[in-house]
Amino acid sequence: MTDDTPALIALDWGTSSLRAFAMTAQGRVIDTRASGHGVQHLPEPGLPGFEAAFAAICGTWLDRAPLPVVASGMVGSAQGWREVPYLPCPADLGALPHAAGRVTTAGGQDILIAPGLIHDPAGAPPDVMRGEEIQIAGAIAGHPDRQAGTTLILPGTHSKWARVEGGTVTGFETHMTGELFALLRTRSILGRLMSDAPLADTVRHAAFLDGVAEAARDGAGGLTHLLFGTRTLGLTGRLPAAALAEYCSGLLIGHEIVSALATRADGPLLLVGSPALCARYDRALTAIAGRGAEAIVENPAPAGLFRLACDAGLLTSESGDPI
Amino acid sequence: MTDDTPALIALDWGTSSLRAFAMTAQGRVIDTRASGHGVQHLPEPGLPGFEAAFAAICGTWLDRAPLPVVASGMVGSAQGWREVPYLPCPADLGALPHAAGRVTTAGGQDILIAPGLIHDPAGAPPDVMRGEEIQIAGAIAGHPDRQAGTTLILPGTHSKWARVEGGTVTGFETHMTGELFALLRTRSILGRLMSDAPLADTVRHAAFLDGVAEAARDGAGGLTHLLFGTRTLGLTGRLPAAALAEYCSGLLIGHEIVSALATRADGPLLLVGSPALCARYDRALTAIAGRGAEAIVENPAPAGLFRLACDAGLLTSESGDPI
Repeated sequence: MTDDTPALIALDWGTSSLRAFAMTAQGRVIDTRASGHGVQHLPEPGLPGFEAAFAAICGTWLDRAPLPVVASGMVGSAQGWREVPYLPCPADLGALPHAAGRVTTAGGQDILIAPGLIHDPAGAPPDVMRGEEIQIAGAIAGHPDRQAGTTLILPGTHSKWARVEGGTVTGFETHMTGELFALLRTRSILGRLMSDAPLADTVRHAAFLDGVAEAARDGAGGLTHLLFGTRTLGLTGRLPAAALAEYCSGLLIGHEIVSALATRADGPLLLVGSPALCARYDRALTAIAGRGAEAIVENPAPAGLFRLACDAGLLTSESGDPI
Repeated sequence: MTDDTPALIALDWGTSSLRAFAMTAQGRVIDTRASGHGVQHLPEPGLPGFEAAFAAICGTWLDRAPLPVVASGMVGSAQGWREVPYLPCPADLGALPHAAGRVTTAGGQDILIAPGLIHDPAGAPPDVMRGEEIQIAGAIAGHPDRQAGTTLILPGTHSKWARVEGGTVTGFETHMTGELFALLRTRSILGRLMSDAPLADTVRHAAFLDGVAEAARDGAGGLTHLLFGTRTLGLTGRLPAAALAEYCSGLLIGHEIVSALATRADGPLLLVGSPALCARYDRALTAIAGRGAEAIVENPAPAGLFRLACDAGLLTSESGDPI
């Protein structure tokens, strides 16, 4: 019989959504809840909104006994419950608790909030992440092979490419790929020709890889130019309207991968995120570099938050010692 | 005393606006009118909308005597008054009349509509322009030095880089720079930190050139990454909020120029368009390539339309011979 006693509440609290996990003292997720109460969508403004969103998602979880609570994501931003300063790279992921912030609810519940990371290379603009550091910690937890010389790719609205050495994040870059794609699809002249009509997977995949190949072609020109090809291929009927979004996605993801790979040495690549989006990146990586990711890691936030709680000494064994 | 007798009506008819010029038989503009009746903003849908917009802007111009009328721009597109197929590159600008289309209004007025151009290189998506071919014809008319080995840059929503050899457009590329900038400023996370507060010109120019330099720096990474620097420079207070739009503009224009220059041989550069936008490109060109444009040409559409009318034999001298 497994032990289903909750020992930790872990919150993945982003801009537009809030996910909560009840976990055992061994780090197993026994219950998952989600709400739309992201930092920008609270039930009421300001601190009462955070209190209300927290109470609503926890429900009865905290009724029986007090439990430690940890959180990550935009809840620690300037627009969050409490701003927690960024920890600078190189950042030892085991040191996240020392840089974490704390809030106490009106009911007396302490919540530990993870810091984000800042990468501030000489001669270039800085880069920031908030929430992804916990996903990275979760993705490499228990995998010594992932802790040295690996690049973790977290595709999304703002994709992150992070280098890990010995359990330390040495640096990272953000690509606005997902946000650009959404803008181009919904708000630009390119979107006007696009159709959502059904299309065979083979045709969709081929159009995506056409875009990837064009982004990777020597002499093809810059991204501002390449994107317009989405329009002309539609205007001239060389791609069906239902394949244009795939081509545009291939251009953007291809551009991201080509430029990101150009700035780093060889080494294992790990994809972290939703299986569908990671599979898309994996196909593009294979087309560009001849090799895909070593692995695709789905939903590592609970494992990362569990590690944060352990490193912070919030989980104790029956003897009272930190686990 | 100058001859102010109108001999030609020339229409620059785009997506969002319509400009009309009354010109003499010598190509001098004697009257200019503008309306918001672009192809996508007609007073009523379909053909009656074109008729009404045309009658409204011409007013009394055509009352005294019939005059030839020429037009260019999106009026010749699939959403225009009549679709005029693209002329393929290499395209002799003197041959535009042979590829032009004609409509006749309900009142019996003939209108000659210029074709657009299509550049269809092997192994790359095609590229198209509609209206810029007339601006190019106008910019090089009467300037033999501009007719060979020159690159004309027409900055805008969809910037064009066109190569001209012996009065022939040999090829061109479109960059979606202006549209991307507008989307990022008004619809993206980058725009949230931007402010329109007044700022000293020196600070604005420096922020613009910072963006240009970052786009041109070896190893800086791809555009999807560079754009995010607009956010982090704002978040960390390294650029004032009122300078962030300038930095973003510098990134985009710098990316366009670096990638466009990489695909062409040395040769004179000519900037064509609004003086403010051309001056911006000129500063970026000087920063990247160490030389600006040979000249900045403002509003060449009337001269290009006049040349179209002459080449089409629409303007006759008093003897009845074509000019």
